[in-house]
Amino acid sequence: MLKNNVETFLACDREYDEARIVMFGAPFDSTTSFRPGTRFGPNAVRSESFGIETYSPYQNKDLEDISVMDSGDLELRIGDTEAVLGQIEERASAILSDGKLPLMVGGEHLVTLGAFRAAARMYPDIHIVHFDAHADLRDDYLGVKLSHACVLRRCWDIVGDDRIHQFGIRSGERAEFEFAKAHTDMHPFSLSDVTELYKQIGGTKPVYFTLDLDVLDPSVFPGTGTPEPGGVTFDELRRAAAAVCSSLNVVACDVNELSPHYDHSGISTAAACKIIREILLAL
Amino acid sequence: MLKNNVETFLACDREYDEARIVMFGAPFDSTTSFRPGTRFGPNAVRSESFGIETYSPYQNKDLEDISVMDSGDLELRIGDTEAVLGQIEERASAILSDGKLPLMVGGEHLVTLGAFRAAARMYPDIHIVHFDAHADLRDDYLGVKLSHACVLRRCWDIVGDDRIHQFGIRSGERAEFEFAKAHTDMHPFSLSDVTELYKQIGGTKPVYFTLDLDVLDPSVFPGTGTPEPGGVTFDELRRAAAAVCSSLNVVACDVNELSPHYDHSGISTAAACKIIREILLAL
Amino acid sequence: MLKNNVETFLACDREYDEARIVMFGAPFDSTTSFRPGTRFGPNAVRSESFGIETYSPYQNKDLEDISVMDSGDLELRIGDTEAVLGQIEERASAILSDGKLPLMVGGEHLVTLGAFRAAARMYPDIHIVHFDAHADLRDDYLGVKLSHACVLRRCWDIVGDDRIHQFGIRSGERAEFEFAKAHTDMHPFSLSDVTELYKQIGGTKPVYFTLDLDVLDPSVFPGTGTPEPGGVTFDELRRAAAAVCSSLNVVACDVNELSPHYDHSGISTAAACKIIREILLAL
Amino acid sequence: MLKNNVETFLACDREYDEARIVMFGAPFDSTTSFRPGTRFGPNAVRSESFGIETYSPYQNKDLEDISVMDSGDLELRIGDTEAVLGQIEERASAILSDGKLPLMVGGEHLVTLGAFRAAARMYPDIHIVHFDAHADLRDDYLGVKLSHACVLRRCWDIVGDDRIHQFGIRSGERAEFEFAKAHTDMHPFSLSDVTELYKQIGGTKPVYFTLDLDVLDPSVFPGTGTPEPGGVTFDELRRAAAAVCSSLNVVACDVNELSPHYDHSGISTAAACKIIREILLAL
Amino acid sequence: MLKNNVETFLACDREYDEARIVMFGAPFDSTTSFRPGTRFGPNAVRSESFGIETYSPYQNKDLEDISVMDSGDLELRIGDTEAVLGQIEERASAILSDGKLPLMVGGEHLVTLGAFRAAARMYPDIHIVHFDAHADLRDDYLGVKLSHACVLRRCWDIVGDDRIHQFGIRSGERAEFEFAKAHTDMHPFSLSDVTELYKQIGGTKPVYFTLDLDVLDPSVFPGTGTPEPGGVTFDELRRAAAAVCSSLNVVACDVNELSPHYDHSGISTAAACKIIREILLAL
Amino acid sequence: MLKNNVETFLACDREYDEARIVMFGAPFDSTTSFRPGTRFGPNAVRSESFGIETYSPYQNKDLEDISVMDSGDLELRIGDTEAVLGQIEERASAILSDGKLPLMVGGEHLVTLGAFRAAARMYPDIHIVHFDAHADLRDDYLGVKLSHACVLRRCWDIVGDDRIHQFGIRSGERAEFEFAKAHTDMHPFSLSDVTELYKQIGGTKPVYFTLDLDVLDPSVFPGTGTPEPGGVTFDELRRAAAAVCSSLNVVACDVNELSPHYDHSGISTAAACKIIREILLAL
Repeated sequence: MLKNNVETFLACDREYDEARIVMFGAPFDSTTSFRPGTRFGPNAVRSESFGIETYSPYQNKDLEDISVMDSGDLELRIGDTEAVLGQIEERASAILSDGKLPLMVGGEHLVTLGAFRAAARMYPDIHIVHFDAHADLRDDYLGVKLSHACVLRRCWDIVGDDRIHQFGIRSGERAEFEFAKAHTDMHPFSLSDVTELYKQIGGTKPVYFTLDLDVLDPSVFPGTGTPEPGGVTFDELRRAAAAVCSSLNVVACDVNELSPHYDHSGISTAAACKIIREILLAL
Repeated sequence: MLKNNVETFLACDREYDEARIVMFGAPFDSTTSFRPGTRFGPNAVRSESFGIETYSPYQNKDLEDISVMDSGDLELRIGDTEAVLGQIEERASAILSDGKLPLMVGGEHLVTLGAFRAAARMYPDIHIVHFDAHADLRDDYLGVKLSHACVLRRCWDIVGDDRIHQFGIRSGERAEFEFAKAHTDMHPFSLSDVTELYKQIGGTKPVYFTLDLDVLDPSVFPGTGTPEPGGVTFDELRRAAAAVCSSLNVVACDVNELSPHYDHSGISTAAACKIIREILLAL
Repeated sequence: MLKNNVETFLACDREYDEARIVMFGAPFDSTTSFRPGTRFGPNAVRSESFGIETYSPYQNKDLEDISVMDSGDLELRIGDTEAVLGQIEERASAILSDGKLPLMVGGEHLVTLGAFRAAARMYPDIHIVHFDAHADLRDDYLGVKLSHACVLRRCWDIVGDDRIHQFGIRSGERAEFEFAKAHTDMHPFSLSDVTELYKQIGGTKPVYFTLDLDVLDPSVFPGTGTPEPGGVTFDELRRAAAAVCSSLNVVACDVNELSPHYDHSGISTAAACKIIREILLAL
Repeated sequence: MLKNNVETFLACDREYDEARIVMFGAPFDSTTSFRPGTRFGPNAVRSESFGIETYSPYQNKDLEDISVMDSGDLELRIGDTEAVLGQIEERASAILSDGKLPLMVGGEHLVTLGAFRAAARMYPDIHIVHFDAHADLRDDYLGVKLSHACVLRRCWDIVGDDRIHQFGIRSGERAEFEFAKAHTDMHPFSLSDVTELYKQIGGTKPVYFTLDLDVLDPSVFPGTGTPEPGGVTFDELRRAAAAVCSSLNVVACDVNELSPHYDHSGISTAAACKIIREILLAL
Repeated sequence: MLKNNVETFLACDREYDEARIVMFGAPFDSTTSFRPGTRFGPNAVRSESFGIETYSPYQNKDLEDISVMDSGDLELRIGDTEAVLGQIEERASAILSDGKLPLMVGGEHLVTLGAFRAAARMYPDIHIVHFDAHADLRDDYLGVKLSHACVLRRCWDIVGDDRIHQFGIRSGERAEFEFAKAHTDMHPFSLSDVTELYKQIGGTKPVYFTLDLDVLDPSVFPGTGTPEPGGVTFDELRRAAAAVCSSLNVVACDVNELSPHYDHSGISTAAACKIIREILLAL
Repeated sequence: MLKNNVETFLACDREYDEARIVMFGAPFDSTTSFRPGTRFGPNAVRSESFGIETYSPYQNKDLEDISVMDSGDLELRIGDTEAVLGQIEERASAILSDGKLPLMVGGEHLVTLGAFRAAARMYPDIHIVHFDAHADLRDDYLGVKLSHACVLRRCWDIVGDDRIHQFGIRSGERAEFEFAKAHTDMHPFSLSDVTELYKQIGGTKPVYFTLDLDVLDPSVFPGTGTPEPGGVTFDELRRAAAAVCSSLNVVACDVNELSPHYDHSGISTAAACKIIREILLAL
């Protein structure tokens, strides 16, 4: 009997029971202030992942050898932000409760708040490692508190000072940089300090790793809502992300802000696919 | 002393006091269920309007001879739908109160609800003339009531049966078509029945004219969120829109659903600009 | 336990056993002589189908009410044409043997040969109804016999004279038009004669329906390998395709030549999705 | 010995001596007021012509059977309009002097002035048949007299009243339409009156045929500098152009305003190629 | 009373009287020899500037704290190069005469000549600092002297030897590089020598800073007329431009050669916006 | 008498007899497994080469001073891989036999096999220098042996161990990397070891240089079939390619995998043109 040839992210076709890592897409972009379209991110990485290999010559590991399920996209209640965050939190909670590691693919960065709520409930001492071009520390954006531009501030509302480690930040209001000085551990402009994290928080503290792909230079990653010139190279990101995932105790993770329709060449989606592969192999 | 060379829609550069018609942009697309991007519509029509002439050989009239102000775009609270609708309603009310005619450029179709609330408050006996590919009569969309897919249903909540006249509709759920049979005056697939409207409602009843540009065939208007093949030609729309605006008592009006980034050729924006010119000249 | 949110064509999510119609993708374009890219067609219709509704107001029918399985894409041996045709033939045979109707989504037009071989083996008295801009009747193309430009000629090799009914043809070599005069039933330039088919072949003779979407005017369907100006409108195609599928005994069918990367606006994919919906509902 | 595989327009590879028609490209767009890029037109039609056939089923004729030389593009002195017109005039004169028919591919519409000067010098009683969306009858554009927007006015400066026959015009200043009433034979909005031309001017008077491809609807021909909605279909243009070329005494001709970079789908270039083929076969 | 929500470059909304710096657009590209389209540059930076922040974490300064007027675009006499240069010169002169600093946004590089004529008249001892991929030192281009490819040569005609300092040049004819050796201070391939400028010309000599954005690598800045691989990174440009503007006595400045239609991703416009912000803050 | 203004690659317009190097295009992409379109590569480099200069400031040499013929594109039998390879081999053999150096422009990487067969027949002791992102060492791809993914393996079938020198490789199956360890001289991730080649193989051994342009980072070269993030910069490639061509005895060479339709900005084609110029000047 014919079976459906289900499309999943490259080689992530395990059943839920046997999977150690569970991917899901959160195709949401309603609070995006500049250019929307990240809702198409999860589908794009799934479709285009076949352009890369399952094997990583950097890590000498292969996706065929680990157990990942790509569970597809959530059907989100577009237009009702709080409801959407609830749907995401519920999914992340279910995966965490089953002792698995959720890897969410956005969507805009606000989706992180849903998954982080789930992770912080289970791991109250959790830290956040945050790679991004933007500080995302506004208290509100034109009066709206649940905005992609405020997502790390909302996370800070939950965990408070000294638990958020920010890298690569090169854009924000003056007030956000001042807030960071007082309340977060910010390393602007580059990812090179990531190697110090292990000394700082050790290999056992639970870590939520949130990767806004616009930390990459727009030349490498043009397909995003708010391109910010002056970012890191692909190899810098690859090394830093692998360092986080292999040396720290990452319990949940997300990769977001791919907006594929702004990049007809597809190099942004290729970059997203490859970094997800490297993260999966390093976790 | 140097003055700013302000960019407005083609020749719509009058001061507020002398203007009979006031345009404003409502760059909102947060409830869009398929492809967002209509937020860039108002800016696009303003920038690209210089590709067409102020003179209409169809009507033998010239925008130079009428009094229109293009007041620019509203700065909307993206992410908070109800607040956005309030901002739109406030702007439309202010214009109506001053005895002027508001012409709003969307944005997704939900923006109509804000302007219509203002118009219906001032003119309780108002009718709606609605050109669209989609019925927009759902009671909710994935549980969300303030959605572009529900906007005419929300208008119906205000005015009730027999006040909504729909033309060109060629897409919807079965339930929407059944709702239309019971509660609205629907003319599916074409605009040809528009000429009957004058007989039906006369030239004095106040009318809100809402034009979803996706009533056009996607070949003519590819730059939209939800292209629906099988639509009307530009000349059909031009004639029908002019008939509505010149024979009925249109007191407020909107033109929406241009999503310019999906059409690199710019023909969708050109179509939007030209239809707005024809509407302005016919009003 | 979490299940994969499998992506299928709109509402075509039945199990094989209960399905009356089985869709599959044949992502092949290696013999394309001008612009390749139709290999991305099946995936595009699957992903973008969510932009249209399951309900057809034209036929007053709903995909939710019929039994279709979308079984995903074949994994084809790109680079070995004969092997690819074998894979397609095998899939079509399996579906036909189980008493179901195969609907293949291409891919370039050569894929038709694989499915047609299966159908002609089971139904030796089969007729072909062929909508296309191009005659596809060359004996070879630069010496290659298994070429998209020769596909109907290869079908003719199987069934011989008076079994191939061609509509909408507006391009070809002089020799192809002469071949058609002698050996096929060709109706160039339009689809209007389709209504005569029922008289000609009746409602019981088995029919293979092959739809090359470039029969549409390039304005409606720019995303194709060989755009040929002067084609039919969407409504002409919709009506003619529905007439074929509802009045004749169609036992297998394909829809091909969507090359989505050549149309960033997505209107070609939308047209393909909608015509597939109308075909599924008419079958 | 290896010969260069020279790229010419489809089958137009004759030597100059044996050619009856000589094509040349005039890649100039410096006075374009809205969107430049028509300079890429001639190269695009040459490269993409291989997507269509040499045979026309409409006319039952084949380019292989007639004698056309494509002599490539002029190397124009971009930035010096008068010099450019001189280069064009010189080329057209040379071809006309040798008793051949020049077919120029633009470039923006101003290039017509160069070729027309040559033709009018040789044939002082020449008429112009002009298909266009725009009247092109301004006396100047922002003070510039040698502008694409003035080209027919500059031709009128040469030939005077009742010699310019304009079809399909749907855009212009009020003053241009008034000028047309007094001085040209204008048939706005459609090409249907073209069939009357033979009665009007007969089959022997010399005719310069200038075809601005934006007379086509932008859905059919999006790749142009100034898309003007509401134009003619491809078949309307094909029939009208063939009527002009086969029934009148066309001594020179041009096809212009293809701006291929604004149409990534390539359908505009395909339309240009096919109409050039039909013109060549009808001449 | 409703005021127009005027669109200016990010936070550059001061009145003329209070402004220290006055921006204006020069949308001209008629002498462009390869790909035109820079005329859309000024409008693009204005529209897209809202994607970046007013605050620079590099300089710890904010556009909100300085006084800049964006006076919109000049309406140029397209097609008459000398007239266009006159219009630009007049605007730059007016601003300089009022003791303000003009920042012109091109347009092709030839626009520099207009503004530089104004600056050189007021400051006869002026130096030019020139960042570019191309030497722009031809005496003529196909016989045309007022060409983008000759602009620095035309400036040299005014100021003579040793006053033009060129950085990043990586393309030109052999003759241009030889001319540079004899007459200008050229530093090919990189911007690293910029730091030596202060020693060379001091902080008080008047300087005209002209920035051709194609000095950036095409990966960072694909949206330009003549992409030249092998350029500098965004951070290299950012640092060098800030060094020029903060250490030298820049009295006038321009940023040119953004051709936004060649970059659908918008990263080129984002780079232009951000570098203009950094220049404004450093001046 | 008018001559055709033949389009060749920049200044490569010599007759065959006087040419030392002969370029030809091999527009083939039928075995491409991900995104086809490299067939448009040769035409694109020819058309767009006019955007760069003939003079190289890096090498202080000029194409005007060397003797190159661009002989245009082969007309390949698309759909029959073995026949296509035969056509390519024949062309390369003819050029080699005449004591000239063939420079082939692809096309997908499989075209290398055709030209290499010719070179290896003439020079049995030939070495291959291979720049690429991908190892291309599979024994088959989905059962197909003549696939772009196997091309270096097919070359190895001819020359055996220690004759293939691979640089920049960053993608492949685990098995390919293992094969490389045993049988080729692989330098993954970078080109920096290229300078050691002269020591290894000397300046007299015959060398076939095959350059897959996707060795470049996708930011520099987005227009390719299989973008692989993390590649080299343009300057790294320029230096390494010049080192190979000037220090080793290169007897034949190819440049492939440009797929121009995936890069609307044209920077990929510009990069290809410039690297071909540098190679021609270094040879």
